[in-house]
Amino acid sequence: MSSVRDVCAAAKAAAPALAGASTLTKNAALQGMAAALDGAHATVLAANEKDLAAARADGVSPALLDRLTLTPERLAAIANALRDLMALTDPVGQVVRGFTLPNGLDVRQVRVPLGVVAMVYEGRPNVTVDAAGLAVKSGNACVLRGSSSAIHSNTALADILRAALAARGLPPDAIGLIADTGRESVKELGRARGLVDLLIPRGGAGLIAAVIADSQIPVVETGVGNCHVYVDAAADLDTARAITVNAKVHRPSVCNAAETLLVHRAVAEPFLPAVAAALRAQGVEIVGDQTAQDLVGAAPAADEDWDTEYLDLRLAVRVVDDLDAALDHIARHGTLHTEAIVTEDRTAARRFTAEVDAAAVMVNASTRFTDGGEFGFGAEIGISTQKLHARGPMGLTELTTTKYIVEGDGQVRI
Amino acid sequence: MSSVRDVCAAAKAAAPALAGASTLTKNAALQGMAAALDGAHATVLAANEKDLAAARADGVSPALLDRLTLTPERLAAIANALRDLMALTDPVGQVVRGFTLPNGLDVRQVRVPLGVVAMVYEGRPNVTVDAAGLAVKSGNACVLRGSSSAIHSNTALADILRAALAARGLPPDAIGLIADTGRESVKELGRARGLVDLLIPRGGAGLIAAVIADSQIPVVETGVGNCHVYVDAAADLDTARAITVNAKVHRPSVCNAAETLLVHRAVAEPFLPAVAAALRAQGVEIVGDQTAQDLVGAAPAADEDWDTEYLDLRLAVRVVDDLDAALDHIARHGTLHTEAIVTEDRTAARRFTAEVDAAAVMVNASTRFTDGGEFGFGAEIGISTQKLHARGPMGLTELTTTKYIVEGDGQVRI
Repeated sequence: MSSVRDVCAAAKAAAPALAGASTLTKNAALQGMAAALDGAHATVLAANEKDLAAARADGVSPALLDRLTLTPERLAAIANALRDLMALTDPVGQVVRGFTLPNGLDVRQVRVPLGVVAMVYEGRPNVTVDAAGLAVKSGNACVLRGSSSAIHSNTALADILRAALAARGLPPDAIGLIADTGRESVKELGRARGLVDLLIPRGGAGLIAAVIADSQIPVVETGVGNCHVYVDAAADLDTARAITVNAKVHRPSVCNAAETLLVHRAVAEPFLPAVAAALRAQGVEIVGDQTAQDLVGAAPAADEDWDTEYLDLRLAVRVVDDLDAALDHIARHGTLHTEAIVTEDRTAARRFTAEVDAAAVMVNASTRFTDGGEFGFGAEIGISTQKLHARGPMGLTELTTTKYIVEGDGQVRI
Repeated sequence: MSSVRDVCAAAKAAAPALAGASTLTKNAALQGMAAALDGAHATVLAANEKDLAAARADGVSPALLDRLTLTPERLAAIANALRDLMALTDPVGQVVRGFTLPNGLDVRQVRVPLGVVAMVYEGRPNVTVDAAGLAVKSGNACVLRGSSSAIHSNTALADILRAALAARGLPPDAIGLIADTGRESVKELGRARGLVDLLIPRGGAGLIAAVIADSQIPVVETGVGNCHVYVDAAADLDTARAITVNAKVHRPSVCNAAETLLVHRAVAEPFLPAVAAALRAQGVEIVGDQTAQDLVGAAPAADEDWDTEYLDLRLAVRVVDDLDAALDHIARHGTLHTEAIVTEDRTAARRFTAEVDAAAVMVNASTRFTDGGEFGFGAEIGISTQKLHARGPMGLTELTTTKYIVEGDGQVRI
């Protein structure tokens, strides 16, 4: 088993070849990776069965088992996601800005790959392929550290992808998999200064906090979303109900699902019973403050409910006196991911969008739209909830940096 | 004395007022800050004299003493730098991109301030004013942690700036100075997660390494520059001499000065004696490899010379067999700051700009041009040598992040 540092060093050595590869070469590699996956279902499914057997023996939940499971249909979809990347615009080489200085120097700020992108993730084996594909298309080498529960699947997938790179003349080490899935390997990854340019943790709050605490290389935080829907006094209540239900139940397990509903006191009485009925019809359990308890029989919310990302069919409800109270609640409990207001009042909408500090602020739209696919980026490696480098859905562009290229005729500073 | 956390918390509380301030308000504040400085020379110079007396008692070098010294002329220049910021374009509110999704949602990615920007720096008290001015113009609160040697000057300057903010109706805590200049305060700053959005260390390699090792908040590394000039076989040798001398002697103490000269073997014999004479005429001491020792009597270079940022009138010289050897040397010893090639061969120039991994790559121009002022950014808070968020000179734009504002008419995901 290679050490973490060895995998990172091999990826760094492979990075220049990826960085220098043309879009045509990278697209050919993606096509080769997809074809190789299509031709290796038996191998991958056999490896996946080992993971599933271990998971069953460990008695993991049906939901987790489902996330771990690969099928021929899922494998075909994973391969097609690689083919979809071929159609996306390659950000590498784009001139971000360019200008000529008074002394005649021509300056261009050009997009270039980051170099080596590392990712720590949980559960689903499809992330292994998605992340490798995004790295290849953006000209980066990658180092992947998945969870122990998916190690057989991930190893089989990485082997196939590495061979496909080699078949197209690219160094296989540009896709590095860390076989050691112990906690120490995440720490070791965070110490790989000079080898890894970006570390992306993708998973629960605990994983992200652990990565940040130990990492000495730049990290982009992703994914924790304690998202709110605020229904203003001037909301259209049918719209508010539809958005609340969609934000909560469309896919409760993801980061852009709503976890708390804030309702202006002026509309609590007509709105809460209607939305509660609609939510409960979809199986949502409601906890709330005193008013919510009184109006719709919500279970009492504890203090920690306002800070909990349920990722489940559960919603916390609070009635607020005004927009200021809603903004204050969001400032205290939000995770800078996505916040939504439902209102027909443009002053309220303008204040909400200006004052809420989040990657995305929605007016009369579901929180579920904060998504690389929905935004038209074609693919995403995660949703950044930090402010540096990338905020919101991270696509190919967010996997690049820039370089200033300055051309002259012997200019010196005077 | 307020604790580090208190200063950060006060800055965070002040941040929304700065973020919401119009360009007119921020410019008025900058004007007020400049006028207040102009009117307080006596106070500032008296405080500065305390720092100077302590420094003299400690027996610090004349160079360090000069960096610490304020004069009426220097104070006037510092105030004028604030006035210059007024003329710069305010990045806040700029729409980076905007599009309408197929479902009718209008998406805008808008520039917004980061929130609270913290800076750890050494020596010069002018950085206190420069950093505060950049923060105000970009709508950020700031937390400043200067060195103990400048604490009286920095405290006097911060008091004046804070009062000027208050006089214009902005919260004085938007400019926070950490009075505790012990090592522990840097660590404490790095632990202020949730309060500080960006931490910028500005100073020597030791300071930067200490900040990175301990910080749990995002850091942008600045300033370490082991910059190379590579003189290619196809260089115009007069141009090469002028660029080498300029890159080394124009201002040896700064990060974009050259530290190593690489010379293609084919031109070593005509070039080295000429450039050595020109450098020595300016007081530069030359260390080098065997060929440089033989050709120009350079002192022998030790292994560590290739990795040393002298920041002084000293240059390491190595003769390389070809462009590949030069690229390899730079990849091993460069600090991703600025690298220059001198050549008339466009293939060599194209390979050098494509393959060198650095914030800025110069062709036939001095390394000294990597500078916010030279690039026309008007002001800079540092030169980033990392790849995330900002690379190269950091101006006002690099002190912002973005927010997606999504406006709809009740859209939900289907």
